[in-house]
Amino acid sequence: MADGKSTQTTPAGRPPTRDRILSATAELLRRRGYTGTGLKEIVKASEAPFGSIYHFFPGGKEELGAAAIREAGKVYNALIAAFFKDAEDPAKATADFFDGAAEVLRVTDYEDACPIATVALEVASTSEPMRQATAEVFESWIADVMEYTQSSGVPEDRAREVAIVALALIEGAFLLSRAWKSTEPMELTGRVATELVRSALAQPPQEKT
Amino acid sequence: MADGKSTQTTPAGRPPTRDRILSATAELLRRRGYTGTGLKEIVKASEAPFGSIYHFFPGGKEELGAAAIREAGKVYNALIAAFFKDAEDPAKATADFFDGAAEVLRVTDYEDACPIATVALEVASTSEPMRQATAEVFESWIADVMEYTQSSGVPEDRAREVAIVALALIEGAFLLSRAWKSTEPMELTGRVATELVRSALAQPPQEKT
Repeated sequence: MADGKSTQTTPAGRPPTRDRILSATAELLRRRGYTGTGLKEIVKASEAPFGSIYHFFPGGKEELGAAAIREAGKVYNALIAAFFKDAEDPAKATADFFDGAAEVLRVTDYEDACPIATVALEVASTSEPMRQATAEVFESWIADVMEYTQSSGVPEDRAREVAIVALALIEGAFLLSRAWKSTEPMELTGRVATELVRSALAQPPQEKT
Repeated sequence: MADGKSTQTTPAGRPPTRDRILSATAELLRRRGYTGTGLKEIVKASEAPFGSIYHFFPGGKEELGAAAIREAGKVYNALIAAFFKDAEDPAKATADFFDGAAEVLRVTDYEDACPIATVALEVASTSEPMRQATAEVFESWIADVMEYTQSSGVPEDRAREVAIVALALIEGAFLLSRAWKSTEPMELTGRVATELVRSALAQPPQEKT
């Protein structure tokens, strides 16, 4: 997974140490979870001196993990923008987003899904700094989707409701599609999410449900 | 968490060793995940001799984990029955189920959620026996919900679609509600799931969407 932020490189042509540590951690978290990721593996994967981890992240694994989760979240901020930013119809963009998720699941043998969901469930009741990082990332995705549906005329309250339900649908579908190795849940939830966005767009701005 | 199956007890008044191992493993998996659960902790929590784990589960952690996931799944089969079995209106039962999930989240400080979701995401791409166990458990929940909506007149295809989307909604809501320590996602998804069931019930059996 490319680290969207690291355009800066060192004279040697590779990203600075801190960026390498962050992107290696994000990738390990996605693949092995928080409990399954050790600092030794992070050091190895990022080709960084062991001491550099505590230099950049004095709080150790918890601080590094939280920063990596925030980095990983940006991949989806960019993905949401790619689908919604220039879309004339947010309902069509929603359908395309779910179709894209199904396609990625298929071509990666159901491995590549939400970059933070596994860790979010792992840490929800065990690490407050990590939980807060996942909470912020989910909120940032909601804010992005709201921006696009509000600019198409959906009132703020309704835009928030629709964005939260759509995110719950895609997260639930990732879980079931991965467990079943089937895109059926992603296809079914995609239709429901699309219909939700379409009906919110069709609603007169004054009316509230 | 009670092990729904273990009504049998030994003369000493506690469940047989195999049942103790299973329920201790299920509880550890729910709280700490698959990677975070070691055989030593299982032995300690179940008060079982170390050798007994390999006696009952020759395949070790993977076989034991898969059996524990199947046991844990039965708690939700029982929960689904408690809400839907004698309900006159499956839509009302759906609303009550989501309300109940929100209440449990609140009173357990957002810890007690789906008994298998964390593990399902952890193992989806790393352990085939574990993945299959989670897939079977999710399928069994779908089959239960289908049974109740079909007996209220919803055609089989539609019943399956509605059950899958409702399960995706509650799983996604567990994730977001735990990350945010807020019942808002569970409340919003509950309304959508209830409306889905209600509209499936209202549909003439011949018509397909």
